[in-house]
Amino acid sequence: MPRLLIRNVDVLTLDAQDRVLKNTTIAVDGKTISAIGEPPRGFSPDEIIEGRDHLALPGFFNAHTHAAMSLQRGWAEDMPLDRWFNEKIWVAESALTEEDVYWGTALAACEMIRSGTVAFADHYFWMSQVGHVVEESGLKALLAWCVFGLGAEQEIGGTTLELTERFVQRWRGAADGRIHTILGPHSPYVCKPAFLERAVASARKLGAGIHLHVAESQGQVDQSLKEYGKTPVAHLAALGVLDVPTLAAHCIYLNKEDMAILEQKHVNVVQCPKTHLKLAMGTTRVPELLTQGVNVALGTDGPASNNDLNMLEVTRLAALVQKAECRDPELLPSMQVLKLATANGARALGFENSGVLAPGRTADLILINMGRPHLRPRHNAAANIVYGAQANDVDYSLVNGRVLMRKGALTTLDEEKILVEAEKRALRLVNQKMSIVREYKS
Amino acid sequence: MPRLLIRNVDVLTLDAQDRVLKNTTIAVDGKTISAIGEPPRGFSPDEIIEGRDHLALPGFFNAHTHAAMSLQRGWAEDMPLDRWFNEKIWVAESALTEEDVYWGTALAACEMIRSGTVAFADHYFWMSQVGHVVEESGLKALLAWCVFGLGAEQEIGGTTLELTERFVQRWRGAADGRIHTILGPHSPYVCKPAFLERAVASARKLGAGIHLHVAESQGQVDQSLKEYGKTPVAHLAALGVLDVPTLAAHCIYLNKEDMAILEQKHVNVVQCPKTHLKLAMGTTRVPELLTQGVNVALGTDGPASNNDLNMLEVTRLAALVQKAECRDPELLPSMQVLKLATANGARALGFENSGVLAPGRTADLILINMGRPHLRPRHNAAANIVYGAQANDVDYSLVNGRVLMRKGALTTLDEEKILVEAEKRALRLVNQKMSIVREYKS
Repeated sequence: MPRLLIRNVDVLTLDAQDRVLKNTTIAVDGKTISAIGEPPRGFSPDEIIEGRDHLALPGFFNAHTHAAMSLQRGWAEDMPLDRWFNEKIWVAESALTEEDVYWGTALAACEMIRSGTVAFADHYFWMSQVGHVVEESGLKALLAWCVFGLGAEQEIGGTTLELTERFVQRWRGAADGRIHTILGPHSPYVCKPAFLERAVASARKLGAGIHLHVAESQGQVDQSLKEYGKTPVAHLAALGVLDVPTLAAHCIYLNKEDMAILEQKHVNVVQCPKTHLKLAMGTTRVPELLTQGVNVALGTDGPASNNDLNMLEVTRLAALVQKAECRDPELLPSMQVLKLATANGARALGFENSGVLAPGRTADLILINMGRPHLRPRHNAAANIVYGAQANDVDYSLVNGRVLMRKGALTTLDEEKILVEAEKRALRLVNQKMSIVREYKS
Repeated sequence: MPRLLIRNVDVLTLDAQDRVLKNTTIAVDGKTISAIGEPPRGFSPDEIIEGRDHLALPGFFNAHTHAAMSLQRGWAEDMPLDRWFNEKIWVAESALTEEDVYWGTALAACEMIRSGTVAFADHYFWMSQVGHVVEESGLKALLAWCVFGLGAEQEIGGTTLELTERFVQRWRGAADGRIHTILGPHSPYVCKPAFLERAVASARKLGAGIHLHVAESQGQVDQSLKEYGKTPVAHLAALGVLDVPTLAAHCIYLNKEDMAILEQKHVNVVQCPKTHLKLAMGTTRVPELLTQGVNVALGTDGPASNNDLNMLEVTRLAALVQKAECRDPELLPSMQVLKLATANGARALGFENSGVLAPGRTADLILINMGRPHLRPRHNAAANIVYGAQANDVDYSLVNGRVLMRKGALTTLDEEKILVEAEKRALRLVNQKMSIVREYKS
């Protein structure tokens, strides 16, 4: 396994003591950080990275996305969620091919590596293709093949629960353990109770978890109360969904009892603040969830709503929207919000040894160029990152100790080819005239 | 005057027809765009810029900032506005020297050029130093020397209204017309009525306008009602302030009558959405102001609160916060919000011939590299810019037809020297132990 030394670097450890180390050295041995400070005796690196004017910090964990929706970036703009789904997204998706998912995810992978993401929780279709991109790119991922459960005839693109079960088994632990898998029933509003119970039984049988969408709108809560006499969270709890490891995206409309259930069941909640703002969906009550003891992570959601896969921006927005929403500028200080995007995400995706820079931890880390005018002066490294850094400031990315980007150049992916192929497929996709497959009601 | 040709470029004109031109040519003759499309017969350029994979659009007008506060970037984090002023900002500023303002503004100028800003409305102290930076950098600016009017003994750093009058006269039209000047009484809450009346008399005498802070908090409105029986806007109108050209920053707490007054008096209003979020100040009601017919521009505010001078981010946030606040994802579509940051800002700063790309308009424009994965595919150029582009994606900046940045390299400023000198001064400033000069009450 290759050995690597990063020298003359500042380090935002994001450890329990919030330590920021100045002008130090990080030694990486294989997948693991072997030392910070003095390298181990006799450590002879295969590569030395000059870290002057750079800050090392844990890479970002994007805890909810649909990466291949990069093909629909900019395709459905400035419209309400129901029209966004019914007139644009689901129409284009009805023409989606396996190859589209490969190239769309590859485009997303280029962007994710460039913007400091080391792992992503993906929830989409044709997920074996996403598996291939993860294998090739060097990223980590928690993959869910999305399945709708309104009735067998409506399962999309031939997707059945059984197919997604096979996917979970086939890809679990693939790419040298970089791939984790999870079941992906879409949500309680497009999965009937009997279908969700089947998904829970599958999850128990496979020892897998479930990644789904929860309480995105007040309309969904009202519908759930009318149909089942329960909020979406209580409904999921009653069906046993929350008794398997659960990754619950959005969770915007919660009451106090919902929050208590999420804590008791150890549900991982994902806020996607940029998408929530852009589609005017409301604000996940992150400070209350954190006080309750819930693990809250951050995600971009798909690039068709978020427009990019930029976790630095999502981290910034997570801090800004809570300060504004709660009228309290002291909420979610820089160091804390960075932990939502790193350690909390690592936990949600099942990569618990990542998210902190310390000896013995996995070397999933990035280096940000702090030598640019918008990141000077250096009063506060965490604040400069959260409120000032741009995705393009990320110069290096390491996953499992492997360099995926070096001085801004991708080492694993053929970016030029991917840009051309993705563009071609994106145009074909949106120029299809297809009928609506199902209807979203907000 | 040099001639310049930009070829193979896409153009977001931001004209009345919202035209987006593909793969075309921009001819610049001296300060002016002489043609878009076919260059004039016999046009022989001194420089040819290859525009392939780039998008040209009008440069940004930052309509409210305190640029030299770059020295306090990251110095006062995660705290309420009163503590932010009283414990941090005004303490450090009490040690501010003329040279600090020069280097802080120079640091800001590097960042502004890099992020596509072509002009800024600055409101600070030691403004002759800002004038020198504008002269040297090639940027445009509307400069106001800030003056407090609580009583002569409290006028800061020896600043008197008379000094700021002399500044207005000395620097008006300087730097070949790139500098405009305006009076800068801080706000109705730290300027007594008699002082504001003196400022109005000065403005009338000089044929100048007034740039000030208005209605930043409910507390300011309550105080104004208690003290003067009028809202801040009505109070300013009664004193005659709004009868001279006025640039009013913030304007968050307005009633219907205030909005009508702002329209009748042709006041330029500036929203600073990132600062408003970060300090939990509330949201300027931009859609209502636009419906009322008010010219609304965008600004960063100072980098001590906003943390950067990134107008691309401010434009994005302006769109996102209104959609969220009004629960309407159709509000402020990309093309419209870009106009707030360009043409509306140009009008507010008195550079009316800028803000649109068309023959005869001033060549204040930028080129953004659209060949990066986060800006593909190309379904919607305006949405890609507003929701995806990063400040570092700006590759070229032209002001009055002069290239201030070429392929990411600054042509007018010694960035390396500026970074070092600004850092040194920033550290000295915040390490001063100084007493509080005045008290901010929210």
